[in-house]
Amino acid sequence: MSKQLKLGAFLFAPGNHAGGWRHPHARPETDMDFAAYAHLAQTAERGRFDTLFFQDSAAVPADTLADGGRTGFARATYLEPLSLIAALAPLTRHIGLIATVTTSYNEPYHVARRIASIDHISGGRAGWNLVTSQIEDEAGNFGLDAHLRHAQRYARAEEFHDVVRGLWDSWQDDALERDKQGRYFDPAKVHRLDHQGQHFRVRGPLNVARAPQGHPIVSQAGASEAGRELAARTADLVFTAALTLEEAQAFYRDVKQRARRHGRDPDHIKILPGLLPIVGRSEEEARAKHQRLLDLLPDDLGIKPIARLAGDLDLTQYPLDGPLPELPPNNSAHGRQQLLVDLARRENLTIRQLARHFACAGGHQVVYGTPQTIADHMQAWLENEGADGFIIQFPFFPAPLEEFVEQVVPELQRRGIYRTQYEGATLRDSLGLPRPAHPAEVAR
Amino acid sequence: MSKQLKLGAFLFAPGNHAGGWRHPHARPETDMDFAAYAHLAQTAERGRFDTLFFQDSAAVPADTLADGGRTGFARATYLEPLSLIAALAPLTRHIGLIATVTTSYNEPYHVARRIASIDHISGGRAGWNLVTSQIEDEAGNFGLDAHLRHAQRYARAEEFHDVVRGLWDSWQDDALERDKQGRYFDPAKVHRLDHQGQHFRVRGPLNVARAPQGHPIVSQAGASEAGRELAARTADLVFTAALTLEEAQAFYRDVKQRARRHGRDPDHIKILPGLLPIVGRSEEEARAKHQRLLDLLPDDLGIKPIARLAGDLDLTQYPLDGPLPELPPNNSAHGRQQLLVDLARRENLTIRQLARHFACAGGHQVVYGTPQTIADHMQAWLENEGADGFIIQFPFFPAPLEEFVEQVVPELQRRGIYRTQYEGATLRDSLGLPRPAHPAEVAR
Repeated sequence: MSKQLKLGAFLFAPGNHAGGWRHPHARPETDMDFAAYAHLAQTAERGRFDTLFFQDSAAVPADTLADGGRTGFARATYLEPLSLIAALAPLTRHIGLIATVTTSYNEPYHVARRIASIDHISGGRAGWNLVTSQIEDEAGNFGLDAHLRHAQRYARAEEFHDVVRGLWDSWQDDALERDKQGRYFDPAKVHRLDHQGQHFRVRGPLNVARAPQGHPIVSQAGASEAGRELAARTADLVFTAALTLEEAQAFYRDVKQRARRHGRDPDHIKILPGLLPIVGRSEEEARAKHQRLLDLLPDDLGIKPIARLAGDLDLTQYPLDGPLPELPPNNSAHGRQQLLVDLARRENLTIRQLARHFACAGGHQVVYGTPQTIADHMQAWLENEGADGFIIQFPFFPAPLEEFVEQVVPELQRRGIYRTQYEGATLRDSLGLPRPAHPAEVAR
Repeated sequence: MSKQLKLGAFLFAPGNHAGGWRHPHARPETDMDFAAYAHLAQTAERGRFDTLFFQDSAAVPADTLADGGRTGFARATYLEPLSLIAALAPLTRHIGLIATVTTSYNEPYHVARRIASIDHISGGRAGWNLVTSQIEDEAGNFGLDAHLRHAQRYARAEEFHDVVRGLWDSWQDDALERDKQGRYFDPAKVHRLDHQGQHFRVRGPLNVARAPQGHPIVSQAGASEAGRELAARTADLVFTAALTLEEAQAFYRDVKQRARRHGRDPDHIKILPGLLPIVGRSEEEARAKHQRLLDLLPDDLGIKPIARLAGDLDLTQYPLDGPLPELPPNNSAHGRQQLLVDLARRENLTIRQLARHFACAGGHQVVYGTPQTIADHMQAWLENEGADGFIIQFPFFPAPLEEFVEQVVPELQRRGIYRTQYEGATLRDSLGLPRPAHPAEVAR
């Protein structure tokens, strides 16, 4: 069998394109409408997606707030992802449910518990996209004057991850006996963690039985050195951004090699770049759809996402049609800043061109064309070690997801590189990842 | 119309009776089984309950852990309540969904956000049971050597509450415009909180639109002076424990008067004592069922819940058939300790008798009898200002809930003191509580 594509659906309401919500077919109220999310989830499941994927921030970005979402991303209010994936669980049967939760402003005991509970509720379909907070605005909602520094955030994230995974092994799989003539559980099969680290002291055990997946899926999106290293050691799935096959291949090779160095099977870490497809029944129609999206942007729109990546430098002081100046180091998102700089240099783009690009999919790859063109692109990356699959992004909701499922998915299936039926019951089954045995079982 | 009973279903798996899970009809695996919870929720909705009510702790109690739940409460592993109520939302239509979340080891921004999101997901049925942590074991899971002192916990809880409610007013009801030719929202209708207090600094705004209920329901269960005062000022619903009508009346009068002093309509704070009914088709059958439950307890069982209330005193050193000694002050649960002392003095009970009582419903009222007897009891408390309704507890699951819905509910309905259909769409509608207007609307 050919290597199989793994697909995630990035349900980023009101849309991944900064102006997408203005499209006549867009339903921007999706952001707060549970019934709309349920429709999207069921549509993605009909399209045999491996998983839904929900991004998150614990703040309204200050620049969005300032102008009511007129000139920038309008993403300001939406349903909290952990609550959302829990509620979507009973309305779906097979699709994975990955929610982003920051390690910067949370306690590992709570996060371990919620993700494990949702894994039970969904019969083994939960995943945690581990991030360190990227938007400065979050700090003010949690008692801090400023964001933690990048290195601190990653040190905390490392330890946070280890505590969560340790707590997931609190109970052996057969610890619960519920013997009405005897005891409820075997205390020898329940393990305290007794973690004492630099950032956390956590005794345990978790008050949730071992999850159906053993460990729910851990996803990561860091592209910096620290981010790659954490992903290579710990992640089941890496969400990344790459604009060319060569860039994708370099990242793919690097992370798989790092995983090997950590003693892992490189096939057990799935690398999924973001991809925003614009599907047309002809190349002409696709091009027109793409242009229509670009036309939704006011002239000053889209500068903000890249201005944020520029750190302390005020990009609006530079000519829109001039080149990107040298950028000072940025505390928020090292990897993404590098992507911007690389793109500008490689394609010799002006600030306006960069802004338009980033407005469309936040720095991710945009491909427009017929279902065949889009499938060609995906297949080339799959077969040339650029990707194990993609996190598919949508400029608005719901039409672009419906079109992808109705037009691109059958083409991928026809090529034999994408499932027609789910392989099993859990997200691990879909991703082809083994269920981790409990350490006490391994030791025996 | 007669005054109407408000009812909550206390879904405390594997059961509220310490030995209940050993009953031949018990399904103790309910604690981790989402399908079983869904059945309970739908059964309670068929019985027209106002709300489900989920207790919580963020730890496995050390004494439960030590012996595998053999001699004490077996409650050790269960689905995290916020995830659970989110997942139950799409499987129910009318019933309220109240989850306990401690203020001692959480951040108000997260809690405000999750409860508001679930209010949106459920169309206005979410509630937050605000507690301060009562079990010492939680501290070790959140980096503390010892539990916060009672007074500190309440000061933090007060401030936590005010931040959450403030964040719920971040967005005016009509702030979101989503005008495709204009802006996404009106920034003048989005409000930063800029809270700076002793325990929290929170800027806001919340990144969730105003909830369908305006403010989701806030429930509280504190019985101490500080607990009553907080409830009187802030709670929509008070879950309390009372063993006699006189005791219930004194509490009812006290809290309603306090509410009045805080400028509130006393009818807008609903007081619901816990009640564990044991229903039989005859008095004889009910008595036999009650005895059967008591017989499920090993002789040493049940001492633990009251030993915990005894604080630093080792109650197991005293003769089981002797009186309760003087108790030292207790850092965990002032109000509940007082209940124990009052009961022991009033009814002149031995330690063994107290233990049996507390094992059955943790200090709450147990009533056994025919549906008529149980309805008589409920009606007397309702009509004599002892209660606005009850939080109904169950010794195990699912049979006692099913029996209550099939036998007691019709009797309450026949008497005209309980709904046959839901009054509206939201939990506020069921409870007869007005939707709070946004402060900016009130000011206008």
